[in-house]
Amino acid sequence: MARPAGIGSLLDIAIDERVGAPLFHQLYAQLRQAILSGRLRRGEKLPASRTLAQELGISRNTVLGAFEQLLSEGYLVMRGGSGTYVAGDLPDLRPEQARAESAVAPPPELARRSAILLAGQRTRVPPARSTLAPCFAPGFIDSSDFPYPLWSRLLAKSWRQPSRAIVDGGDPGGYPPLRQAIADYLRQARGIDCAPDDVLIVSGIRQAVDLTCRLLLDSGDKVWVERPGFPGIGAAIAASGGSLVHVSVDEEGLDVAEGLRRAPKARLACVAPSHQYPLGVVMSLQRRLSLLAWARAAKAWVLEDDYDSEFRYAGRPLAALRSLDGDGRVIYVGTLSKLLFPSLRIGYLVAPRALAAAFRSARAVVDDQPAMATQPALAEFFTSGHLAAHVRRMRQTYARRQQLLLQAAERHFGGKIVLSPDAAGLHLVGRLADPALRRQGDAKVAEKIAAAGVTVSPLSAYDVGEAGKRDGLMFGYAAVPDGKFQPGARAIAAALGL
Amino acid sequence: MARPAGIGSLLDIAIDERVGAPLFHQLYAQLRQAILSGRLRRGEKLPASRTLAQELGISRNTVLGAFEQLLSEGYLVMRGGSGTYVAGDLPDLRPEQARAESAVAPPPELARRSAILLAGQRTRVPPARSTLAPCFAPGFIDSSDFPYPLWSRLLAKSWRQPSRAIVDGGDPGGYPPLRQAIADYLRQARGIDCAPDDVLIVSGIRQAVDLTCRLLLDSGDKVWVERPGFPGIGAAIAASGGSLVHVSVDEEGLDVAEGLRRAPKARLACVAPSHQYPLGVVMSLQRRLSLLAWARAAKAWVLEDDYDSEFRYAGRPLAALRSLDGDGRVIYVGTLSKLLFPSLRIGYLVAPRALAAAFRSARAVVDDQPAMATQPALAEFFTSGHLAAHVRRMRQTYARRQQLLLQAAERHFGGKIVLSPDAAGLHLVGRLADPALRRQGDAKVAEKIAAAGVTVSPLSAYDVGEAGKRDGLMFGYAAVPDGKFQPGARAIAAALGL
Repeated sequence: MARPAGIGSLLDIAIDERVGAPLFHQLYAQLRQAILSGRLRRGEKLPASRTLAQELGISRNTVLGAFEQLLSEGYLVMRGGSGTYVAGDLPDLRPEQARAESAVAPPPELARRSAILLAGQRTRVPPARSTLAPCFAPGFIDSSDFPYPLWSRLLAKSWRQPSRAIVDGGDPGGYPPLRQAIADYLRQARGIDCAPDDVLIVSGIRQAVDLTCRLLLDSGDKVWVERPGFPGIGAAIAASGGSLVHVSVDEEGLDVAEGLRRAPKARLACVAPSHQYPLGVVMSLQRRLSLLAWARAAKAWVLEDDYDSEFRYAGRPLAALRSLDGDGRVIYVGTLSKLLFPSLRIGYLVAPRALAAAFRSARAVVDDQPAMATQPALAEFFTSGHLAAHVRRMRQTYARRQQLLLQAAERHFGGKIVLSPDAAGLHLVGRLADPALRRQGDAKVAEKIAAAGVTVSPLSAYDVGEAGKRDGLMFGYAAVPDGKFQPGARAIAAALGL
Repeated sequence: MARPAGIGSLLDIAIDERVGAPLFHQLYAQLRQAILSGRLRRGEKLPASRTLAQELGISRNTVLGAFEQLLSEGYLVMRGGSGTYVAGDLPDLRPEQARAESAVAPPPELARRSAILLAGQRTRVPPARSTLAPCFAPGFIDSSDFPYPLWSRLLAKSWRQPSRAIVDGGDPGGYPPLRQAIADYLRQARGIDCAPDDVLIVSGIRQAVDLTCRLLLDSGDKVWVERPGFPGIGAAIAASGGSLVHVSVDEEGLDVAEGLRRAPKARLACVAPSHQYPLGVVMSLQRRLSLLAWARAAKAWVLEDDYDSEFRYAGRPLAALRSLDGDGRVIYVGTLSKLLFPSLRIGYLVAPRALAAAFRSARAVVDDQPAMATQPALAEFFTSGHLAAHVRRMRQTYARRQQLLLQAAERHFGGKIVLSPDAAGLHLVGRLADPALRRQGDAKVAEKIAAAGVTVSPLSAYDVGEAGKRDGLMFGYAAVPDGKFQPGARAIAAALGL
């Protein structure tokens, strides 16, 4: 039977069973190429998987596998039940091309320094929308369990008859009662002794890094960043002119001695001492003290990213680095967007006393003042005990889900991928205990898992270079409904033949 | 009778009637010095004006005059009825010192490039709280007339049971329905043909300038800015490494020929063609076309700041520069914070089609995504016609207040300060028609007016250098209640002996 002249023929897609690559991957690669080259236009609707499968003479599962991968990488998007589309917000450049050009020159009329800014596609790729989604995409929180009706009432109350202080704002550091509430919270929860004046409301870690670098670094100054680490921090540092020095993380956290060897005159070190991302390591007290001693001696600064300190399920957290800092060298940063919901975009920067006015001034120059929108409601959310109640509730949920993940892994992975409990966090790292899996490498293993409709992140994606790269799989569990752990793990086991 | 040993003696304040400077100015200068040197500490409460007057043996009006000036400059703040305090958020450095040091070197442990960021005290100094406030501080809108109860309901509705798209967000350009609403609005109101994908929700002009410079300029690249102009734009450009070239504004707007002479290879020009700030000039079509021709030929960019296009009281506005731009060289920026209320902090950047993805990517790197907080409510505010109704209402209010200002000036200034009607805007520039006033200079005249409890801004404060500096006074009228125009103008006339 002659195939209909559908999109498959139009796009010149050829699937060949004799080629080594799995069928789904052939289709994935060709669709991706079609999107990047513009043959499939942004926003264009793809045919239904069944139709495309028929047209190409392959199984529907193969098509679904390719779609899932493209969805998880952000090339495709689903629109509520109506089908699969090419993402509308893809940058113009092909990623390969962009990377190649950034090494030589950006497109002629953009700034040379803009190259790093062009790599900033979506910061969070939503998990594939298979029936198993959101197993086990890391970086997601359970935003469905937030008390929105209460939030809605607090917002309404704060804006019904707002004072002039609320409608005009005017303080580049943010709404004073919220800064007070955050200072109180940090004193109680994190042992940080700070005044409301030291607290600056920011949109998140990226704005905090941006202000810090612009105030404290000149272009080309070196910055220690953790390896592996959260790529968003490195990108934000590079975008404000900092020069990255990737320093290894071991079981005690950032290897300060390595940093001292490689870049003793760095101006800034960015660390996540409470719970390193992605490894989950807690920085030892010794390393903390060495880091602070270096900063004091070098007159350098430390940015402490305390992004998930609220999610601790066992034991007492080590006090924040900031609470050990007698010399005013630590800039402490936290976020509420991981605690409440991602689109909140409210974080806080606690400046060393001597820098607080400079930070407010810098913020005024580059971004005026933070929007007042949620600040009064947030202040009440803190002071009326809602925040503490929400943290308690989410901590229970996440602790339970970590258990469910461990049980599911234990049951289905046959010891070939080994997950260990973590006292904190929102994901676990699975070690590839099986030599066959290790030979394939974590990226390839993750790809196979994606073909089964499940998303995990290869640890190597958070690392740079090749030497000493760690292998492993990140399993996010925070956003996974309780009932999906077993089916998710089962699908992984089936995909990998465990 | 021996004077009590109050703050006057403690601070060693000496008022001498034989010295040439007015008494209020002597007191102002000495209090300011005491604040800058730290003898009066941040947050410290000042004695009541009556007490201080008694103690120093001067009239209470003299004390009030000094306080008003310090209030208007931001050294002092009032706290709701409880008294006058030294502002809590003054930067550490004395302004003179900061300025001097920025020419040589910033404090050793801050970055050299941070000097510009340290100048960012408060961006809007609230008007003095005399009985005549807020006569006639420019830069303020009437934020009391916004329909807050409606706004509160829209917010509550959008957050009661928000969709996952709302709580997660994820688009660095902003909430798609709001971008659609803004694109529709700009098409209708400003003749701008843009797609929702070209629209980026930003916090305001400063973030728009920051993203533009980081994407399109390398450090040291030249940028044309208007002279006189809004200092906040110049500061934001300098803070992202741009090198400012101040180009004169005449009755046709930016003098493109002067720009071409002085910096033909500039990479960017920042203009406010609809209604220049602070002069109120509308850029002529000829100049618009020359500017675009330069941009095309030089492969440079134009940032169009359309900050108050909604407040036009007579005639049709010229179409936006962006609507004339066939070459994709114009970045168009507007704000909703001047239309709704200042702490909203929502603006929009319309990128040239070819740059839209790059802008979104840059925003993702340096600031993730805009907070969702007000975006759904704003989208409904646009689409349900509330925005149009609010613009109509405010336009009537502001048009009436401009008339009231003109009438009051006509009646009280005896032709010595001449205000002319303006078809748009939120302030008028008063020309010093009296030679005696001109000899004193606008800064000195404004200072005398401040002593009478009224705030006007000298035009010279918006200019750089000395040569060709314009003299004049800016009278803001938007935030002045109808009943205060006559008393305000009368107080000015009395202060200047008009």
